[in-house]
Amino acid sequence: MSARNAFYAQSGGVTAVINATACGVIETARKYPKKIANVYAGSNGIIGALTEIMIDTSKESAAAITALMHTPGGAFGSARYKLKGIDENRAEYERLIEVFKAHDIGYFFYNGGNDSMDTAHKVSQISKKMRYPVTCLGVPKTVDNDLPITDCCPGFGSVAKYVAVSTQEAAMDVASMSETSTKVFVLEVMGRHAGWIAAAGGLAGKEPGDAPHIILFPEIAFKKREFLKKVRQCVSDYGYCVIVVSEGAAFANGKFLAEAGTRDAFGHAQLGGVAPVVANMVRESLGYKFHYAIADYLQRSARHIASDTDVKQAYAVGKAAVQYALQGKTAVMPVIKRLSDKPYRWGIESAPLSRIANKEKMLPRRYITKDGFGITEACRRYLEPLIKGENYPPYINGLPKVAKLKNRRVKPLTGTKFVV
Amino acid sequence: MSARNAFYAQSGGVTAVINATACGVIETARKYPKKIANVYAGSNGIIGALTEIMIDTSKESAAAITALMHTPGGAFGSARYKLKGIDENRAEYERLIEVFKAHDIGYFFYNGGNDSMDTAHKVSQISKKMRYPVTCLGVPKTVDNDLPITDCCPGFGSVAKYVAVSTQEAAMDVASMSETSTKVFVLEVMGRHAGWIAAAGGLAGKEPGDAPHIILFPEIAFKKREFLKKVRQCVSDYGYCVIVVSEGAAFANGKFLAEAGTRDAFGHAQLGGVAPVVANMVRESLGYKFHYAIADYLQRSARHIASDTDVKQAYAVGKAAVQYALQGKTAVMPVIKRLSDKPYRWGIESAPLSRIANKEKMLPRRYITKDGFGITEACRRYLEPLIKGENYPPYINGLPKVAKLKNRRVKPLTGTKFVV
Repeated sequence: MSARNAFYAQSGGVTAVINATACGVIETARKYPKKIANVYAGSNGIIGALTEIMIDTSKESAAAITALMHTPGGAFGSARYKLKGIDENRAEYERLIEVFKAHDIGYFFYNGGNDSMDTAHKVSQISKKMRYPVTCLGVPKTVDNDLPITDCCPGFGSVAKYVAVSTQEAAMDVASMSETSTKVFVLEVMGRHAGWIAAAGGLAGKEPGDAPHIILFPEIAFKKREFLKKVRQCVSDYGYCVIVVSEGAAFANGKFLAEAGTRDAFGHAQLGGVAPVVANMVRESLGYKFHYAIADYLQRSARHIASDTDVKQAYAVGKAAVQYALQGKTAVMPVIKRLSDKPYRWGIESAPLSRIANKEKMLPRRYITKDGFGITEACRRYLEPLIKGENYPPYINGLPKVAKLKNRRVKPLTGTKFVV
Repeated sequence: MSARNAFYAQSGGVTAVINATACGVIETARKYPKKIANVYAGSNGIIGALTEIMIDTSKESAAAITALMHTPGGAFGSARYKLKGIDENRAEYERLIEVFKAHDIGYFFYNGGNDSMDTAHKVSQISKKMRYPVTCLGVPKTVDNDLPITDCCPGFGSVAKYVAVSTQEAAMDVASMSETSTKVFVLEVMGRHAGWIAAAGGLAGKEPGDAPHIILFPEIAFKKREFLKKVRQCVSDYGYCVIVVSEGAAFANGKFLAEAGTRDAFGHAQLGGVAPVVANMVRESLGYKFHYAIADYLQRSARHIASDTDVKQAYAVGKAAVQYALQGKTAVMPVIKRLSDKPYRWGIESAPLSRIANKEKMLPRRYITKDGFGITEACRRYLEPLIKGENYPPYINGLPKVAKLKNRRVKPLTGTKFVV
């Protein structure tokens, strides 16, 4: 069988290390030129396949591809674009196959989270039905760490490290000023459904009394009275209180704290921002001086403080995806398997997409302390290896050096247009 | 003359490198045991002198003091506490001298910003009047970079590096997602009066079209129409728009944007947060999807991404302060003098506190582009050396290792209490 082309697309929110996965895919594919001719990357993810705007990665130098290892963002563009069910929008799937056929694409690598694994799975099914077989591989990526089966998700370790380091640093700042200034500091982090990222803030505290004193998880219903009691206790005991709050923190009725009331001058409910809601609650009830930070995109793009474990795993899943594809495996995703905690050892296995698609892995209750405000030793044991090691980018004039790609487009061949 | 003791205090908002200055003071003092017996540090800054709660740094090991080089926060506690004028509250100054006398303190090192330089100056005056001579040295520290005479202020280079790196990283994230997701990203940074920190965000953009596309400085009156026009233009030209906004951004009438309208559910004006104000403006007028980050304390405590230039200068001013004191200089502050831009060379000189106290250095107009939304080449030339070099802390289990001090208290000797 002669070499066929591969299509690689980034999907959903990008991470500090998604390009390391791209590097793993492309570098590995380049080692098998008899099987994989070129790797085409979707410009803006799957949209690039639908609109036939693809980037020919074979035009990039080996050095440029290697530089993806330390480049945040999504090098080819990512997209928040979920393909609908096959019955609802068969045209999209047929278009994908049309483009794949036109460009002799025999391998599809889809680098994303839950939704993307579902899409990759559906593409593998439709390709069979349409008698144009495509080897479909899911490649895991999500800062939310909520994919099932895999022990952890590439992208998470780095955001976890960012949050743990930032919590430790800001807490030292607050501790040293609390006598005459800020007594309560709130750090808002990502994780709308699962509290993995918020939990990572807990790594900053090693001994009793250490910050963060309170973590607000999406998994634990927010109880205002208990929360305020704990804040007061912390300020009384330690002189200050550091709170890490997940953007997904919610009341028992499921309503997000972030929706709990801030309005702009026109009376419109203000979008986003759970930190000011929590901080204002503290001010109104307890009167303490507060500050808050909202890490937002800084946390998921912070390649400068990426976890070495995470960077290595991000590369490894990209590499394994190509290897599995060449072994003829399809509709699978490489998953990370933890072999031991201390010393931390891990390996890669494959798992069927059908078992991964559309499933979310929440923070288990046993990872959260009984009072609901902290992480347990079991959680720490799980998280600690994931933030281990520093993988620094090279710098030039004080700023990280990033990959500069040519991003040359593949010549369209279908002769038809498709509007997404 | 036999050896006398020294008193060192940290003042105002702490920085990622204020402890490097403490290290410079203590290590240098230790080299002259015949002149300086012990360095006592104020617990919570100047309050520690007033309440006679001081930390005996001679009880700390050399290794612990060296570890201050990579420890953020204020190791002995800092305070937002401004001594009033001598006529208004002479009792405070007399108390200071009482404590200094009781502990044979002959050297006063005050590590802070404008206000603290004023205090150090006043202490030097009152000590003469009260015939208890104290050698008074100001030691510069402020992330705001607004002290006069000195070319830059220790603490600023690191926050500048943090802001430049974070802007570059987040912009890459936004750029790669803008086709289907966030089009406008706003990063709020510190600097209530001067736009130095906001300007540092501009370092992330090297070529035309690079982010940040808009910087909102406190020095430039905010004009909503022009701002929105520029946002729309950027989204049209580049597909996205990155905005760095100073917390001090204000309208022509002096009113802060942060006060411009967000109210909580009870109708109270909400404290802080210029980023959501700017972001909501964009949403209401242009309808773009937005995200915003508020770096808050993360930026000034981010020792993990400290500028090597800054760390070295922070140490150098501490060292020079002790050397000047031993040369008999009083009522002076070590200032950083720039000798050349490329290659960057700098030295330390002394300047009288009377010329520094209570003066603020704004971002010069020639550092801001004509349209008021960017930085000029002159600004870049000034800023670039200050963020150069990475000075990484050591890590243990994925988190920065920090100094663990014993913080043993000096036995009180005055026999009197003083309530601040």
